[in-house]
Amino acid sequence: MPEFNQIAWTESGTIRILDQTRLPGEETYRELSQPADMGEAIRTLRVRGAPLIGVAAAMGVALAARREGGKAGGLDQVLEACELLQRTRPTAVNLAWAIARMRKVARSVAAGDGLHTALVAEANAIREEDRAMCRRIGEAGLALIPDGAVVHTHCNAGALCCSGIGTALAPVYLAHQAGRRVSVIADETRPLMQGSRLTAWELGRAGISCTVIADNMAASRLRRGGITCVIVGADRIAANGDVANKIGTYGVALAAREHGVPFYVAAPTSTFDFNSADGSRIPIEERGAEEIRAIGGQAIAPAGAAVWNPAFDVTPAELVAGYITDRGLKGRDELKVLRTEDGGSSEFRVPSN
Amino acid sequence: MPEFNQIAWTESGTIRILDQTRLPGEETYRELSQPADMGEAIRTLRVRGAPLIGVAAAMGVALAARREGGKAGGLDQVLEACELLQRTRPTAVNLAWAIARMRKVARSVAAGDGLHTALVAEANAIREEDRAMCRRIGEAGLALIPDGAVVHTHCNAGALCCSGIGTALAPVYLAHQAGRRVSVIADETRPLMQGSRLTAWELGRAGISCTVIADNMAASRLRRGGITCVIVGADRIAANGDVANKIGTYGVALAAREHGVPFYVAAPTSTFDFNSADGSRIPIEERGAEEIRAIGGQAIAPAGAAVWNPAFDVTPAELVAGYITDRGLKGRDELKVLRTEDGGSSEFRVPSN
Repeated sequence: MPEFNQIAWTESGTIRILDQTRLPGEETYRELSQPADMGEAIRTLRVRGAPLIGVAAAMGVALAARREGGKAGGLDQVLEACELLQRTRPTAVNLAWAIARMRKVARSVAAGDGLHTALVAEANAIREEDRAMCRRIGEAGLALIPDGAVVHTHCNAGALCCSGIGTALAPVYLAHQAGRRVSVIADETRPLMQGSRLTAWELGRAGISCTVIADNMAASRLRRGGITCVIVGADRIAANGDVANKIGTYGVALAAREHGVPFYVAAPTSTFDFNSADGSRIPIEERGAEEIRAIGGQAIAPAGAAVWNPAFDVTPAELVAGYITDRGLKGRDELKVLRTEDGGSSEFRVPSN
Repeated sequence: MPEFNQIAWTESGTIRILDQTRLPGEETYRELSQPADMGEAIRTLRVRGAPLIGVAAAMGVALAARREGGKAGGLDQVLEACELLQRTRPTAVNLAWAIARMRKVARSVAAGDGLHTALVAEANAIREEDRAMCRRIGEAGLALIPDGAVVHTHCNAGALCCSGIGTALAPVYLAHQAGRRVSVIADETRPLMQGSRLTAWELGRAGISCTVIADNMAASRLRRGGITCVIVGADRIAANGDVANKIGTYGVALAAREHGVPFYVAAPTSTFDFNSADGSRIPIEERGAEEIRAIGGQAIAPAGAAVWNPAFDVTPAELVAGYITDRGLKGRDELKVLRTEDGGSSEFRVPSN
């Protein structure tokens, strides 16, 4: 299990977060006492990954009602905090969803100490649901990780993007905990390097062997042999099983098929978007050119160079061997079952980064 | 045509090189007056790309016999320079090949001013052969670049790796010169970024539109459509047509096949290694972990992270639509002809970087 705490309450009711922008160089924690502090932390990616952003925003809202210097915020301050936090990263659906829950709770209780208690309880509920979801995904994928397994992954869909043990990495953590030998190949994941910066770091903290490769080495690594399976997370999954995930996922899926390595997608049921018939309906965010033109302020392309920088790509369902969800391991033909069970999830979550 | 000079004699007989380590940020030229200066420039990658290294080393040898302060080096100094330059990058076959030519010339002429003249002439001959080779490759590939073409490339196989107009980019330069509209998609090419640093820079200097993408975006870009063809260089081509080239080439070739985009390899005949029956016989250099763990001194992976960093991969001949060579555009079944013509090239060149 990862030996760090992404986010936690302190004894005085403030919040302690792991500052992910300092990884992998430093494991630095920051104490946040005001909703605005949390807003800054989310905006600057100190806290990232949609499930974790949802949890963090919910906890941040509760800070508004915390008693400090003998004075606690009331409903107005809480609703203000909701507004402030909602604006931090407008595309992350989890954020809006978590804040909506907090707002509803705030309006349903009287002001005073009861307000703070209720908000903390709701934020904790959101966090516990997230942790339970991660664990169920891990259990659903555990059978895919035999002793001696080598798992290839892309980006970071681990403990650092949620409050539990992750999605794609959850089966790896549970296999490790069960005493199975397991190691991971992590694509570095340009442009933001979530694979080399975050996946390699959190696996290292859990004592799980991890080898970092540049993204363009994935096809060669899969060809070389010895890879048990590929497991990646998902940002959105269309009704037909097409998967939008971090840019680069599609190329890995093509190479996995070429070399007979099964390619799995791990995601909570809430990631399924039954309103999108297939991947072509999923809008793909294009990000700024500077992410490609420079790394850490150092120019790696000419100043005016044209850049194409899509944040996600779509992997066709035909390339996916199975979906590791919090309701079990599902084949493509079983996805409709998920829809029936919850009556269609229009409130899918979009992990950020 | 690229509007810069990779390497040139100055009026006083010294050598002026474009310092490629300063690209793309600065276009800095350095004047070299001693063979040791050239040794340093090659060793530190100020001058890189096997054809260019060969030319640069040959010119560097001539510096030893140059009259400076009324005094010119003799045969001993020239042979010493040969030794020194040969040690700079031992794996680049071009380097050894060019120096062998210089050594032979040095031994065949009397010392004095005649020595310097003969060495300069031989270095110029090597440079002119390289330029002519580039042009013939460009002519062989010109028909593949119609008006409005979009060419996808990987790494840098352009003017910056030789003294002419490159190999993979040669057809692009000639098409542009012929007035055809042509643009290029350049993979950034981790870990050393030759695509974003060098290919984008030299195309920009030639006024050719270039869009940089991260390597993991290549499959998505090919899927998106509108790509006329992929053209890459080669480090070594086996007898059966398997191609060793910069790491990442193989993944691009897989994605190109998936989306029906023809994948071409541009290389001088000297790149064909008929002593290697197929790609499995080509040794693949693995480079240091720091190239993956850090960029410009900034850590992008945990300090002790395990890394796999192969410099090249092998693209199977089945994925190659054609070979653009200095003896014309060849299909896989025509490669034997190249062997017959020159009786088998055991002296293939291995471009470096």
